[in-house]
Amino acid sequence: MRAQAHGYHLDVEAALDHLISSGGKRVRPAVALLMGGMLGGDPRRLVHLAAAIEMLHTATLVHDDLIDGSLLRRGMPTLNSQWSPAATVLTGDFIFSQAAKLAAETDSLPAMKLFAETLTTIVNGEITQLFSSRGLASRDDYCRRIHAKTASLFELAGHAAALLSPVGEEKIWAASRYGEQIGMAFQIVDDILDFTGEQATVGKPVASDLRQGLITLPAIVYIELQPGDPDIEAVLSRNLDEQVIERLIDAIRQSGAIQLAMDEARQSVERAMEALSSMPTGVERQALEDLARYIVQREL
Amino acid sequence: MRAQAHGYHLDVEAALDHLISSGGKRVRPAVALLMGGMLGGDPRRLVHLAAAIEMLHTATLVHDDLIDGSLLRRGMPTLNSQWSPAATVLTGDFIFSQAAKLAAETDSLPAMKLFAETLTTIVNGEITQLFSSRGLASRDDYCRRIHAKTASLFELAGHAAALLSPVGEEKIWAASRYGEQIGMAFQIVDDILDFTGEQATVGKPVASDLRQGLITLPAIVYIELQPGDPDIEAVLSRNLDEQVIERLIDAIRQSGAIQLAMDEARQSVERAMEALSSMPTGVERQALEDLARYIVQREL
Repeated sequence: MRAQAHGYHLDVEAALDHLISSGGKRVRPAVALLMGGMLGGDPRRLVHLAAAIEMLHTATLVHDDLIDGSLLRRGMPTLNSQWSPAATVLTGDFIFSQAAKLAAETDSLPAMKLFAETLTTIVNGEITQLFSSRGLASRDDYCRRIHAKTASLFELAGHAAALLSPVGEEKIWAASRYGEQIGMAFQIVDDILDFTGEQATVGKPVASDLRQGLITLPAIVYIELQPGDPDIEAVLSRNLDEQVIERLIDAIRQSGAIQLAMDEARQSVERAMEALSSMPTGVERQALEDLARYIVQREL
Repeated sequence: MRAQAHGYHLDVEAALDHLISSGGKRVRPAVALLMGGMLGGDPRRLVHLAAAIEMLHTATLVHDDLIDGSLLRRGMPTLNSQWSPAATVLTGDFIFSQAAKLAAETDSLPAMKLFAETLTTIVNGEITQLFSSRGLASRDDYCRRIHAKTASLFELAGHAAALLSPVGEEKIWAASRYGEQIGMAFQIVDDILDFTGEQATVGKPVASDLRQGLITLPAIVYIELQPGDPDIEAVLSRNLDEQVIERLIDAIRQSGAIQLAMDEARQSVERAMEALSSMPTGVERQALEDLARYIVQREL
């Protein structure tokens, strides 16, 4: 990833260095490398795939933070907090182009196609969210949204890694399924942490989604438990009064909705585990199982 | 191109439709289709390539217009003039992703790699221009800038079309060279039209580049003809006084700089014609020659 920025504009090198240094959990490339390693894929091509996926993720974050006006990401200042919108848009585009170059280095047309389709899915999801009136609160909408936003890229990591490996349709399907399901669990847990985490832990205000009128799984479950609650009705109708929000956050936390949402995440992890059950045993499979378990333990 | 937007968010479909309807000259896809047709490439793959190139071009225009705050393009309102910056950034990203999908449909890894590299070149060029202090006025800088901005995509059209065709290294080189050189000529003529055109013709204010402190070939040639001219010194030192600018535009128009800049464009067209000289004769070659000639006749 670092090597990608060499030979271009110095400010872009510095920006990319800043973005890469700020880290992140690198879960997506880990899925690609472990899955491909387990299935006997070529390590050099898998490294290109893993880097391509993390770069694509980084590019979407750069544009997302600009759009949302976010000032912090992983506890570090975002690019848009320091640069003009113009420079931020173009740096995001630059990182997209680097991701595309890395994806081409996999030397696999099917992987490249999947890569382009996933980018389309992610961006279409963001556009749909941007244009949708907030306040939608069905599980179906939520699942579609988090699939586009998060699970699709995890699915790509598993799917494309299998495509770079000497395996048949069944294992390719299972690898996609593993990625998709831990991606769903990952986003559900993220949405739960938004309710349960303290500002210092998650690096952003608690219940930031709800404060923006964005309804995630804990709130959806709460609505199912307490249909007609006047506070949630107020938020759904875009009445974002501070006192109402605070009362609602407390109510959601104490209602059992958090635990029910966690059950959903655990079920996704179970499905991911099932998908691994036919895979070759060894250190990679062990690590993929640990990774899946880790995702639902982040809440603690 | 139109088919690409089907099945996504309705506002995106409408936006893409608007962008495609506003037309443009479609010179880049014409180069790809004619070059590949002349060299015996597969028509289906060439159509994907041509559409990918035009979509990539469109995506860069969407982000450029946002960054420049341009309100009109081809006489039609730009996306950013009607939509929020957020929606405009994401729609540009969406079109990039569609371009990448189309590029993958060429089923050629070398073409895909070239495609990704060209995107990097274009974006790096934009970033360099954004971060550079304006007022640079060397021919070398200018050539690098217009190569990245315009010629690289024309070069891709010629080069990738040849890669999709059953021809050897020499013809691939000549096809790239043709694209690159008509691309250089195209941008030089565009920069000339910015000085000679009337607002109604070019759809934007006359000498808009100079007014923004951006020095293009006519101004560079003028500096060579009139070194030390106080008006150009003023513009180079970012003193963008309206009266000074108007006087300078008139001076450049009357100095012969326009004709000398046109000579440069004509030389590029000559080099493009030379590159065609070893190519198979027929209607496609005739059309590519006509296209090259047309580029330097747009001034009239």
